[in-house]
Amino acid sequence: MTRAYNFCAGPATLPAEVLQQAQEEMLDWRGTGMSVMEMSHRSDEFVAIAQTAEQDLRELAGISDDYAVLFMQGGASSQFATVPLNLMRGKSPADYVNTGIWSKKAIAEARRFGEVNVAASSEEQGFTTVPDQASWKTNPEAAYLHYTPNETIGGLEYDFIPDSGDVPLVADMSSSMLSRPLDISKFGLIYAGAQKNIGPSGLVVVIIRKDLLGHAQSGTPTMLDYKVIADNDSMYNTPATYSWYLAGLVFKWLKAQGGVAAMGEINKRKADKLYGYIDNSDFYANPIEPRFRSWMNVPFTLADDSLNSAFLKGAEERFLLNLKGHRTVGGMRASIYNAMPEAGVDALIDYMKAFEKERAGHE
Amino acid sequence: MTRAYNFCAGPATLPAEVLQQAQEEMLDWRGTGMSVMEMSHRSDEFVAIAQTAEQDLRELAGISDDYAVLFMQGGASSQFATVPLNLMRGKSPADYVNTGIWSKKAIAEARRFGEVNVAASSEEQGFTTVPDQASWKTNPEAAYLHYTPNETIGGLEYDFIPDSGDVPLVADMSSSMLSRPLDISKFGLIYAGAQKNIGPSGLVVVIIRKDLLGHAQSGTPTMLDYKVIADNDSMYNTPATYSWYLAGLVFKWLKAQGGVAAMGEINKRKADKLYGYIDNSDFYANPIEPRFRSWMNVPFTLADDSLNSAFLKGAEERFLLNLKGHRTVGGMRASIYNAMPEAGVDALIDYMKAFEKERAGHE
Repeated sequence: MTRAYNFCAGPATLPAEVLQQAQEEMLDWRGTGMSVMEMSHRSDEFVAIAQTAEQDLRELAGISDDYAVLFMQGGASSQFATVPLNLMRGKSPADYVNTGIWSKKAIAEARRFGEVNVAASSEEQGFTTVPDQASWKTNPEAAYLHYTPNETIGGLEYDFIPDSGDVPLVADMSSSMLSRPLDISKFGLIYAGAQKNIGPSGLVVVIIRKDLLGHAQSGTPTMLDYKVIADNDSMYNTPATYSWYLAGLVFKWLKAQGGVAAMGEINKRKADKLYGYIDNSDFYANPIEPRFRSWMNVPFTLADDSLNSAFLKGAEERFLLNLKGHRTVGGMRASIYNAMPEAGVDALIDYMKAFEKERAGHE
Repeated sequence: MTRAYNFCAGPATLPAEVLQQAQEEMLDWRGTGMSVMEMSHRSDEFVAIAQTAEQDLRELAGISDDYAVLFMQGGASSQFATVPLNLMRGKSPADYVNTGIWSKKAIAEARRFGEVNVAASSEEQGFTTVPDQASWKTNPEAAYLHYTPNETIGGLEYDFIPDSGDVPLVADMSSSMLSRPLDISKFGLIYAGAQKNIGPSGLVVVIIRKDLLGHAQSGTPTMLDYKVIADNDSMYNTPATYSWYLAGLVFKWLKAQGGVAAMGEINKRKADKLYGYIDNSDFYANPIEPRFRSWMNVPFTLADDSLNSAFLKGAEERFLLNLKGHRTVGGMRASIYNAMPEAGVDALIDYMKAFEKERAGHE
């Protein structure tokens, strides 16, 4: 068996150690005679697995008791509706910042449940930058302020936490959760689809300040009411138990790596290496304003688009997989989440050098 | 490693062969160098896994091209809202039949989205029977007629498919899907949480007649609009890929067993054995009218409730697990889904006999 370096944006590579443990425990979790996915979600064993995962996440991310942590289903796309359904609270508008495709999706869905004010947008700049916060047209009476700290497709990442004053700050952290230290206390709500830095798809983690619970609009499906989920410890119905367990294994792995502070250093080093090589090359390019370049998703183009398929073919031969850029952006994209080892980035750079040398005739 | 006989109502036991295959493929699916849970849902490999699973389900259940098959998230509890949101179609009321706790949950949630008519109920009979269809007060103008073919908690199962005339028939088949042959063409919509007969929790399969697509109420979250999910082959967003893959392995296993016709024979034999033993004993009892006894969930009581914990302790010592009845019903419950081998039922009966002999002084 050989493991590939998988640069997929999500579902994404997971730590080999996590998969090995899941493999060992697949048919018999610690002598119980059953797989975790066969356990009652109400059993002592599974409740312990679930609570340990939550506790480890709280420790890793520094989440205080002022916040509830929810393990929900439906991915971030469901949260695009769930957030306005729960947080509009009879107020108007909800402020949104538009910095890319995922921002736009969140905005389009929110408009179905209330008035949305796009407080700022970098669409005219091709989403290559984050608008200066001084220019944002936020509303002090807004229900909340929503932004997308890391745009998975565009490869754009905020290098600051917006100041929303007394308005609850809401963030889609699907592709940046746990990638570096973060002051959770600045947020009203954070949500993150699991399939990048947390675990398998089919799970979405929600961190919500408790005073924001209990305000769902009438007509909110019960399964999308944060208070119902919080009051039932995310077991109002059967949760995605196996995904929850795997997320717990990832949290343990993160703690063993030294937590998010250590991951942040490693992730910065990985990103710096890759962007550094791209910037020093005339053959590869990345269009994002340097201070807003994502540590997680690195899009890049080749000097000649007609070389794209040859680049991808050669990469696959070296087991460097899923480097094709998103269909709306083109070019390449290397997603280098927590579970992508630094050696994977080194292998990618080595290949990029070799390809450039061969195709561009560079020394 | 010893595998238990796990009688949990859900998440439930899975075929050992399925878990073994998942274990083997955990770190490297067929030489791809990655786990299925690390694959892009848009990759050729995963799309093939997904399509094969759908095709196998269509073959197993006999689902024609008049129906879309959707792989959604949120379990049956999400469907309790999704069904009225999509199928009310400006009509009123929706007819519901109340035969137990899961019917009642479906009814309570539907009332939040439209008028509900409870056309029949066996609540006064303690949910020990299914009301004779001749007595149902259905409305010929109803948006749909909803029923629960198998009540997982009560252990009550319809032995007929209701005749709903031109009104679409909707069924929560979470705990009876694929347990015996079924004429799908009689239904407008079937939904089934996966964690009993299909796979792990976090996945819900929906089979919907295509003419019922495209009628979602305004205010329906996009992720709950059946037409959006159908138009995008259940990949409007990232689906629960690993659960989908596991469901596909279960479908392959079912085909290898001979399909639902063979499973129906085995399931009937398993149920007949267990009910037969209960009926011939003065020590154990089941309250359900015999023709409506569930083949999947067999609740039973002991002659003396004070023996319950001793019964459960002895069962656990024999690795017969999760026999405790639902907290709302008490007593015991043996869930004997497709993946519970006949030998597991035999082992349970052997233990019940030994316990009865010891505690009741019977020969």
